[in-house]
Amino acid sequence: MKKLAAFIVTAAAAVLSAPASAQFAKAEDAIKYRQSAFFVMGQHFSRIGAMANGKAPFDAKAAQESADIVAVMSKLPWEAFGPGTDKGAPTKALPAIWSEQAKYKEHADKLQAEATKLAAAAKTGNLDNLKASFGATAGTCKACHDAFRSK
Amino acid sequence: MKKLAAFIVTAAAAVLSAPASAQFAKAEDAIKYRQSAFFVMGQHFSRIGAMANGKAPFDAKAAQESADIVAVMSKLPWEAFGPGTDKGAPTKALPAIWSEQAKYKEHADKLQAEATKLAAAAKTGNLDNLKASFGATAGTCKACHDAFRSK
Repeated sequence: MKKLAAFIVTAAAAVLSAPASAQFAKAEDAIKYRQSAFFVMGQHFSRIGAMANGKAPFDAKAAQESADIVAVMSKLPWEAFGPGTDKGAPTKALPAIWSEQAKYKEHADKLQAEATKLAAAAKTGNLDNLKASFGATAGTCKACHDAFRSK
Repeated sequence: MKKLAAFIVTAAAAVLSAPASAQFAKAEDAIKYRQSAFFVMGQHFSRIGAMANGKAPFDAKAAQESADIVAVMSKLPWEAFGPGTDKGAPTKALPAIWSEQAKYKEHADKLQAEATKLAAAAKTGNLDNLKASFGATAGTCKACHDAFRSK
């Protein structure tokens, strides 16, 4: 178990540093990749939301599992928004992503920071902490969608 | 950084224990979820394959990043193969998944075990280790696809 834990720390550090070079065979793959990462993240974020909003019973362990997955997934999509990936498959990504890179990166960074905090909040096992952090994280989703995703 | 590392260990432990209860609103979501997890895993596995097969220069750090993501993703799809998720969206999942659950679980477990070994191999920074473990992991992909995925 110790060995496994050590491996995961390394794993996480690697994920957190985020691969610099995009390596997609074609734009379609990059689009599918980022959509996949967002979908997995969204499913787990929704589970937390259901608990935060009283629509599902609070299950501290399940909340923590989902928050941890959200935190890992929040690191992945960004490398898949490289040059030339604005088309090639159906996508709601707006051109502003590529014309306003600094602002876009700021949003991406905020989500990752809030997702990390969400996982820490879930770890406390306290529903009020989870609710507060869920709201803050959801705010970063919404702000970025409003600016960079078509309706 | 220590705090972050501690969080990740917990995160990983949670992921590794795998959520028992499937929580998908509809079969379509479960199908999309598992396909998304497999797609992200496949992209990173392919990057390692390209290095293992000499089609891309060996980049030890990139290999490790991808192997770590493969290891995390390998834990996710299984809860999305619950009862009633054999249809609801286009899927290559064969009925045998639901009629031969024990055999299917064995395949799923094998992939997870090999993916964990792959991440450990990548961590050594040695290309020969990576090649050997890549081959073993790819074997588990193929065996399961042959038995449980339509062509």
